[in-house]
Amino acid sequence: MTTFPELHLLRERAPLVQCLTNTVVQQITANVLLAVGAAPAMVAHPVEAPEFARVADGVLVNLGTISDATADAMRAAVAAAGETETPWVLDPVAVGGLSVRTRLAHELVEGRPSAIRGNASEILALAGAGSGGRGVDATDAVETVLDSARALAERTGAVVAVSGPSDAIVSLGRVSQVTGGHPVMQQVIGTGCSLGAVTAAALGAVRFGVEVHSDHDAVLAAHALLSAAGTLAAETTVRPGSFSVAWMDALHELTPERVGELVTVEEHA
Amino acid sequence: MTTFPELHLLRERAPLVQCLTNTVVQQITANVLLAVGAAPAMVAHPVEAPEFARVADGVLVNLGTISDATADAMRAAVAAAGETETPWVLDPVAVGGLSVRTRLAHELVEGRPSAIRGNASEILALAGAGSGGRGVDATDAVETVLDSARALAERTGAVVAVSGPSDAIVSLGRVSQVTGGHPVMQQVIGTGCSLGAVTAAALGAVRFGVEVHSDHDAVLAAHALLSAAGTLAAETTVRPGSFSVAWMDALHELTPERVGELVTVEEHA
Amino acid sequence: MTTFPELHLLRERAPLVQCLTNTVVQQITANVLLAVGAAPAMVAHPVEAPEFARVADGVLVNLGTISDATADAMRAAVAAAGETETPWVLDPVAVGGLSVRTRLAHELVEGRPSAIRGNASEILALAGAGSGGRGVDATDAVETVLDSARALAERTGAVVAVSGPSDAIVSLGRVSQVTGGHPVMQQVIGTGCSLGAVTAAALGAVRFGVEVHSDHDAVLAAHALLSAAGTLAAETTVRPGSFSVAWMDALHELTPERVGELVTVEEHA
Repeated sequence: MTTFPELHLLRERAPLVQCLTNTVVQQITANVLLAVGAAPAMVAHPVEAPEFARVADGVLVNLGTISDATADAMRAAVAAAGETETPWVLDPVAVGGLSVRTRLAHELVEGRPSAIRGNASEILALAGAGSGGRGVDATDAVETVLDSARALAERTGAVVAVSGPSDAIVSLGRVSQVTGGHPVMQQVIGTGCSLGAVTAAALGAVRFGVEVHSDHDAVLAAHALLSAAGTLAAETTVRPGSFSVAWMDALHELTPERVGELVTVEEHA
Repeated sequence: MTTFPELHLLRERAPLVQCLTNTVVQQITANVLLAVGAAPAMVAHPVEAPEFARVADGVLVNLGTISDATADAMRAAVAAAGETETPWVLDPVAVGGLSVRTRLAHELVEGRPSAIRGNASEILALAGAGSGGRGVDATDAVETVLDSARALAERTGAVVAVSGPSDAIVSLGRVSQVTGGHPVMQQVIGTGCSLGAVTAAALGAVRFGVEVHSDHDAVLAAHALLSAAGTLAAETTVRPGSFSVAWMDALHELTPERVGELVTVEEHA
Repeated sequence: MTTFPELHLLRERAPLVQCLTNTVVQQITANVLLAVGAAPAMVAHPVEAPEFARVADGVLVNLGTISDATADAMRAAVAAAGETETPWVLDPVAVGGLSVRTRLAHELVEGRPSAIRGNASEILALAGAGSGGRGVDATDAVETVLDSARALAERTGAVVAVSGPSDAIVSLGRVSQVTGGHPVMQQVIGTGCSLGAVTAAALGAVRFGVEVHSDHDAVLAAHALLSAAGTLAAETTVRPGSFSVAWMDALHELTPERVGELVTVEEHA
């Protein structure tokens, strides 16, 4: 059974996470961060975004509902995060099928994100191997995307996380597969986008870690936590309204040990 | 008892609905669409909005929190929807009392929406017969607005839906009245705005229907579904927090047959 | 035991509250206003914002996620509220640490808000005595901020409310301390921001009051109501997901008399 020391660090350090994220999921994202012990802040003005990125422990850049102003804020926040070596996560929502965000994602990825999280079609598109999905739905099987994820990890230096029935966490020389959760999570908006935010929180929590695989393990722990909460909540209800409530409660209650009992992690070289 | 074959189509076809909607209700709107079996996408950048409208099955244009940029996105999406003959729904939130959205609504309605959904005062204002309401509250009785709805349907070709204690669905030569739900729905933000989104989903589901009344029946089915979920949820709780959760669960669980048992539909020529 | 006649007025008059507030908390803010008997409207277009401020009973200006356009809307709404003597509330989220909103807050406060609500670090920053907090978290003890709150109340004429473990309501010659609620409220995003909106609602409800302390008592009643709902909800659950639902139900159910039983109010000269 996997233990997740990163989740202890997450609770202890209460990382401050700046979320440059889409307006659809801001509320649930903030609540998820609070439930897991992190502190959310949504500061997206182009002038203020880099000011905040310099003091944040982690930054999430989610392209779901970009405007010209928020795109500028993202560019500035990514540049600031680079200067302060603050970990940041790119969530390339719906990249591939839409022009503005696709160009923006390719530009931002040059800023060397610590992690990239998306569904299979988004990772394929960002790796240059696919045409993207219809919104936040994955239309490519997770398995077929592993090669693209590896190529993307190699090119960018990021840990690449591919969400699907199982989540694959891919970095140089390592693939971890997390299995857990419940399909009803697909019917609650923001479970995936919140995962990007918790990934940024976990990276912030291990920020000064010295282990070789600190970042990979942090991304893995974030995925395990949200997945385990899904497994646990689904024991009570699989209807989306009440599941959403139970999932938030579970995120708050879960200990790192319990997470290890609720999900399966397989490691591949 | 009315059966709703359109609701079977909605589940089977899982229409992709682009929501150009207000930021207050984006989360609940997305969750409602997922609960009823549709797929939401909020793409509101002026360049991307028409790109997405061309691949969506239905488009919602809700004027609740317009900015200059989202107004441009709406214009572009409506033009694109016209080119691809994608059904789109206009929800003229608070039109009548506020200058920018009132001008915008009058402009957009020339783009021939498949349906227009609003409360009585909004429909009156859009028909040129009233001065609008105070936000999303109706201040005119549904009954007095039927003539205006008929005139608006005639002028625009749209199915016009007037929300109130009973909902009236008005098209050329036909008025259907849906009775159900519970007054607590007025105390949960977004139940009305979500109805606009589900209306777009239902129109997308019957998009290639050949029945004379396909669009009217789709709009009717959407209203019946959300109303039936309200009736069902209110059997458990009428407090707004827990009702909101129960309503989402009900939307997910309801079969088309059960919808017919929970609401009353009256037809008028 | 304190009774809260202002809460009766709130239910009777159903004040219309314009919320120029951050996009993270718009949904919960609207639901909270509906639950306590007020009517929410989020109208933030720079041209429409002052149109609406002239008909609203109260206006909330919350700086959480400002853009250039919403900043213009805030300036215009505040000016309009000044013309019609409509009460308005300033919530200076994260002021102190971020440049654009700090300048904006100092500018807006010249428009003479009826009330200013924030955590200790925000009130310190606005009073010119501190450097601000990291987002919505307070980093200064409520007690140390009372002098700054008094100075701010004197300079602006506003009732100044400082949120913390106990809330302090400060105006010329009067300090009221409200104790109640539960720490889990800190883990539900928007409980504080909603308090700003309910404060605007309560001020709108007593708008034509003739008592010396009408505004102070209205701000106090708003704080007592949300705090009491927290106390009551926490009797059922202290997990953030289910607490959030129970809190909304409690806001809807609480009578003014019951509020007085659930919180403690201490008065100081």
